[in-house]
Amino acid sequence: MPQHIPVVENILSANDRLALENQAELDAAGVFAVNIMASPGAGKTSLIEHTVRGLAGKLRLGMINGDVATSLDADRAQAAGAVAIQINTGGDCHLDAVMVHSALLKLNLTEFDLLIIENVGNLICPASFKLGTHKSVLVASIPEGDDKPYKYPGMYRGVDAVVINKIDLLPYVPFRMDYFKQGIAALNPGVTQFELSCRTGEGLPAWLAWIQNQVQDYRNTRS
Amino acid sequence: MPQHIPVVENILSANDRLALENQAELDAAGVFAVNIMASPGAGKTSLIEHTVRGLAGKLRLGMINGDVATSLDADRAQAAGAVAIQINTGGDCHLDAVMVHSALLKLNLTEFDLLIIENVGNLICPASFKLGTHKSVLVASIPEGDDKPYKYPGMYRGVDAVVINKIDLLPYVPFRMDYFKQGIAALNPGVTQFELSCRTGEGLPAWLAWIQNQVQDYRNTRS
Repeated sequence: MPQHIPVVENILSANDRLALENQAELDAAGVFAVNIMASPGAGKTSLIEHTVRGLAGKLRLGMINGDVATSLDADRAQAAGAVAIQINTGGDCHLDAVMVHSALLKLNLTEFDLLIIENVGNLICPASFKLGTHKSVLVASIPEGDDKPYKYPGMYRGVDAVVINKIDLLPYVPFRMDYFKQGIAALNPGVTQFELSCRTGEGLPAWLAWIQNQVQDYRNTRS
Repeated sequence: MPQHIPVVENILSANDRLALENQAELDAAGVFAVNIMASPGAGKTSLIEHTVRGLAGKLRLGMINGDVATSLDADRAQAAGAVAIQINTGGDCHLDAVMVHSALLKLNLTEFDLLIIENVGNLICPASFKLGTHKSVLVASIPEGDDKPYKYPGMYRGVDAVVINKIDLLPYVPFRMDYFKQGIAALNPGVTQFELSCRTGEGLPAWLAWIQNQVQDYRNTRS
């Protein structure tokens, strides 16, 4: 497989070109878009459910849910009140700009203020594929362990915010918050961080305020 | 990218051929090998640490630890008393037979009864790449959620055993064991399952007995 690396590079640059086109489409409609990534089970869908409910009546939300199989995530987002499009990657371990492009064609973008894209549960490849979103967010969770920034540096390096979910489990698992945050700081100094629990609701208001501010800042820079 | 799928198919069949060669090397030395897969943070490394300690003096253990970056896992395995070789995949989200082949060359296989290969933390791609091991084991964990078999069917379908780790967290997270096990049963009827906690030690003896029996069965079929 000596040709492995050049093939990957070609796919990535084609992906990045299409990601720019996706962002141009979003900008033409004035829609702020966020790419949410995480390990399986860190709580992406739970965070999105809370976000949909918390922003109801304040922002018009659209969703694209990526998954290897099933439409469980899109079903949950839709039940929470969002317009949701499901992408089944058919085994691929990440979303790419092509898949998102197809999904954008199915949404009437002018109906939305905020588009949330839920990536496939994976801490590796999603970090390498731009989708055309304006910001990207990583959802980490306490029971995954405090070594994850060190072990998955690519993911922690490239995101605009880290949501540290499941803080209600801190009393029950060994997790050194200092060590975890040192790892984040080394890879992504000053990155926005939220400590919250989707289960108890603790810390969610700060996350909701941030996402609303992001949409407002986006509008301000465009007007 | 119309050529994407054929390229993948060629890589897979080349991988599978090399996986057979890896297994032949293992068999020539009489070493039983297990591929351990899981989501990031499910507890692969903790389970392996307990396995190394629990089997000390009973089986001679070798380890290959796959990781995107760092040698944290190999360091932990080695601290627990195993001979460990680290594979850094350099960004790849799974081990493949080529990487394992290179690692096998660095080990004197005749020194071992059992070789444990710790795959990269990922519930998707590792399921598609045979390594040449005799058995494969998935480590699931309670806080990941009870929907994981439904969302990552490829991983649950192909394994010989499922270890359900972190059962000490059952009182603190919403997790319907029945629903989880129904998902497993639909994909992989009758698959061997262990419920345990690497933190409290509950359930570990059954896992240790199973792995010892697997090595014994392997020896019996070969003699």
